[in-house]
Formats: sequence, structure tokens, C-alpha cells
Amino acid sequence: MTHSEDTRTLADVDEQELLDTVLPRFATSDDVLIGPGDDTALLQVRSGAVLATTDTMVLGRDWLDEWSDGADVGHKLVVQNVADIAAMGGRCTGLLVTLVADERTRLQWVADFTTGVADAARDAGTVVVGGDLSSAPAGTRTVSITAFGELDGVTAVLRSGARPGDVLAVHGTLGRAAAGLLLLQSGTPDRDTDLVLAQRRPSTASEQGPVAARAGATSMLDISDGLLRDGGRIARASGVRLDVDPAALAGDIQALTGAVGAADAEACVLAGERNTACWPPSRLAWCRRVGG
Amino acid sequence: MTHSEDTRTLADVDEQELLDTVLPRFATSDDVLIGPGDDTALLQVRSGAVLATTDTMVLGRDWLDEWSDGADVGHKLVVQNVADIAAMGGRCTGLLVTLVADERTRLQWVADFTTGVADAARDAGTVVVGGDLSSAPAGTRTVSITAFGELDGVTAVLRSGARPGDVLAVHGTLGRAAAGLLLLQSGTPDRDTDLVLAQRRPSTASEQGPVAARAGATSMLDISDGLLRDGGRIARASGVRLDVDPAALAGDIQALTGAVGAADAEACVLAGERNTACWPPSRLAWCRRVGG
Repeated sequence: MTHSEDTRTLADVDEQELLDTVLPRFATSDDVLIGPGDDTALLQVRSGAVLATTDTMVLGRDWLDEWSDGADVGHKLVVQNVADIAAMGGRCTGLLVTLVADERTRLQWVADFTTGVADAARDAGTVVVGGDLSSAPAGTRTVSITAFGELDGVTAVLRSGARPGDVLAVHGTLGRAAAGLLLLQSGTPDRDTDLVLAQRRPSTASEQGPVAARAGATSMLDISDGLLRDGGRIARASGVRLDVDPAALAGDIQALTGAVGAADAEACVLAGERNTACWPPSRLAWCRRVGG
Repeated sequence: MTHSEDTRTLADVDEQELLDTVLPRFATSDDVLIGPGDDTALLQVRSGAVLATTDTMVLGRDWLDEWSDGADVGHKLVVQNVADIAAMGGRCTGLLVTLVADERTRLQWVADFTTGVADAARDAGTVVVGGDLSSAPAGTRTVSITAFGELDGVTAVLRSGARPGDVLAVHGTLGRAAAGLLLLQSGTPDRDTDLVLAQRRPSTASEQGPVAARAGATSMLDISDGLLRDGGRIARASGVRLDVDPAALAGDIQALTGAVGAADAEACVLAGERNTACWPPSRLAWCRRVGG
């Protein structure tokens, strides 16, 4: 990404110019009956009910401009919202995007953020249906998404469905984004290694949510606060205890040991939780009954 | 509202204690298939499509703690979102509520905000279905709502439907919240006069949106940026010019003249737009064809 020569800030453009920068970057779909520009959006809902969730990222807490550019932030914001839809067994059908920013925010940052949102939305098979722009006092920049989804005939998979005898499973690897954050905190100059990219631009296999639901997952959630904490949420909601097999995590730990050392590798895999400027990539954890 | 003896801040409670403060204040409804507490909410949609809109308020820009308490902020946030649903001809069916606040925020403020949201939601016939809590750097406090709605068989009324010969109509009075803001800015000690309450706790006759839609409104929007600016949005979207009759506004201007003087009264009625700590109450404007 180049930051080109555009040094204008939000103070240099009016709302219409800003919308002209933002809106053309968003695709649409047949399900969007009314898109951005009116008092509300109108989104088709084919299955009689809509999934809805919202997540916010705050400058200085969830990202730092030194480590993540606008496209990174837009990308991550989409991924973590889409992951919440997937964690119910659903498919994302639309996004509302909110930007709250002080007037010293560079227009180029907004353009990059918009591009990151649009690209990640396309990757997830969804579109932006509307949103909100708001100015803020100096130093404040927050971005939010509300994501909508449908279950397409799947029964929603709650946190509370786990039962004794179920198997705990995680899709994908654990700890990589937390390890990437450690590398950034230790001053790594390279922002484009795999681990740092896992922190800056996490991915989620959102199609695996419906797959797990159809395969009989009894309980599911998006791991954004680390395996131990989010696993604990399944345990509490379901009234069960989780028995985590260390051997099942050894590969993930081993894969990070070279980059951050054995102790930090284990901590990243088990607890890689939300820290300042760290939102680990979303991973789905679910329980499935394997016995009678 | 009393601020009681509770001097705790968000730094003194964990997320679960905070949720225990917030969630019991919210009612539910039969349309909420899955409410707060899981990865997403699931909201019944009976008419095949969902209206969706989002609006944010920012401390220091959209309200000042000196003038508005937490309940005022929660109330206003609900009203302005519900008004956007009404301005399409819809009925609000659910709300997602987001609070982004630094840890010095008083727990009592959060409780008051929650009460304001819950009370205004009940008044509007809707409920909170979920939301997000996020910490923020010192001095930052923003609140957002995403509102959902249904059209119940009404055709959505866009901004773009006005045609030459239509009559421009406004429900309710204009300028009262802007006049209330002027009084606050001039140092009025009384926060409970009608005009100041119009600023702190605006009301909207949200049921009038569907009424106007069924009566044949060709174009409609929620006036939150003043009659001239929001009327201009209808004009631009519809490709028409609006001919505003001064005589029709004389009563609203006259009603404010005693409190703020003739010149400011006229400015409030015509332009009462969004200023720091000012979000005028939502009024619906619509156009209706009266000739062949």
C-alpha cells in the first residue's frame, strides 16, 4: 500500500466528498434492497430471522497506527464480525460500517480503511449495506461494524449446548496472531512476516461455521480472547468442564517456538488474548458429541 | 435521577459485573429468538426484509456531561435511531447497543445510560437484543445503536420520491431542541424547562412514519440536521426544489421568541442543526402528492 501524495485530512473535505471517497469502493448484492444513502438500509431476509452482532475497534487499544495501516484495520474489523456470525452456524449477508474520527485523520487512512473493509467483505462473500460517519474530539478514532447473517436452515449453535462426552475441536491454528504481536512489541522491523500478518490481517474460515453446525456441533464460539478464556465461556454456559489435551496443542506451540521461545509460544497458544493493539485472529471452537 | 453514593468506575468491576449491571435492565420480546450473551442475536423477521440503521454519539461532540446525564444520552440515542426506522415507514423491532468508554467512567453513568436506553426502547415499543462493550483511552466515551425494523407491508419511503406538486409536511414542532441548546450555552441554571428537556430528551412520534407512508407520502426523512439541510437532501435526491412557506413556520418561531429572541428563534426553526452537544430531536418531514 502506498500513501501517495494525498496529505488532506477530514478537515479538508465535506461530508459529501468523504462519501464520494468511500461509497464507490463498496460492492452490492441482490439481497440489498436499499443500500447506503437513505435513512436506513433494507436487507432481504429469506429464512424468517436475522443474525445480528456488532464489534468495535478503538485506536490505541485495538490497534496502533505504527503497526497497522487503515486497510489492516478494515480487514480485521470485518473478519471478527463475520466470525461471530459463523460461530452461530450462519452466513454473513451484510455489514453496517461506522467510522468515528477526529478531523486530523488523514483522508488516505479513510480510503485505506474503506478498501480493507471492501476487500475483506468480498472475501467473506458479503457486502456493505450502510453505515455512519461521525466526527470526534482530537485523538479519538473508533470503527465499528454491525454484521447480519442467515442460518439457511441450520439451527443456531449456542455456547450453552456442550454436554459431557462431547469432543472439543478448534478450526485452524492457535497463537499465531499473539506471537505476531509479541514480535511487533519487541521491535521487529518486518511487518510482512507470516506471524505479523496473522496479527495485522487475521483470516477466518467463516464457511466452517455452517459446516460444523451441519456436522452436529453442540456448542460453538469465536475464539477472540484466547482458548482458555473463550473455552471457559463454553464451559460456564454449558455447565461442563473442558479437558484440554496438551498433546493436541503441541504442534501449534512447536510452530511458534522458533520465533518467540517456548514459554511465550505456549502462552500465545493457550491464552493469546486481547491486548492493546492485539485482536487475535478469529478461530472457531466447537464441541461435538462423539459418543452415544 | 440521583447519583447515589456509588463512586465506583469501570476500573473497579470486571466485564461480568458490568454485564450484571446492564443486562437485567433490558426487556425482551417474542421476536427475540436469541438475546444478549451469545456470539450474535437472532431476531425474527416476519416480512422478508429487515430495515437497519446505525447512529453514534460522541462525548464532547454530541453531548457534554455537564448538560446531559447518562439517562439523557441513552434516551436520545434510542430516539434518533428509531426515528430513522420511522422515516422509511417502518416499525422498530430491535436494538444493538454499544458502549466504548475509558475506565474512569463511573459505573453509575453506565447504569443511568442503560436505564435511559431501556426506558426509551420501551416507549418506542422495541427491545435491546445485544451489543458490545469496549474499553477506550482516557477521555473517550462513545455510544452507538444499530436499530432494526420491519415495514409490515408498507413500501419503503425513500428520500428520492418527491415530485413537483407534492406538499412538504413536518410532524411536530421545529427548533425547540436547538433553542434548548442555546439556553444551555447561555448558562441557564435550570435543566428541566421544556426547551432544555427538548434538547436533553427529544421525543419522536415514531408511529407517524408508518402513518405517513400509508397516507401516501412520496418521500420522507428524519430531520436531525435542521429543516433547510435535511429538506435540501430530499430536494437533491428527488431532483426537485422545495418551496417553504414562511407563514407555516411562523407559529414555531413565535413560540421560541420569548426564550431566545426573534433572530435566534428563526435560526433554530430553519437550521437548528447538529452542533457540539446538540442533536435536535427527530422530526419527520415528508412530501405527499395532493394534485392529480
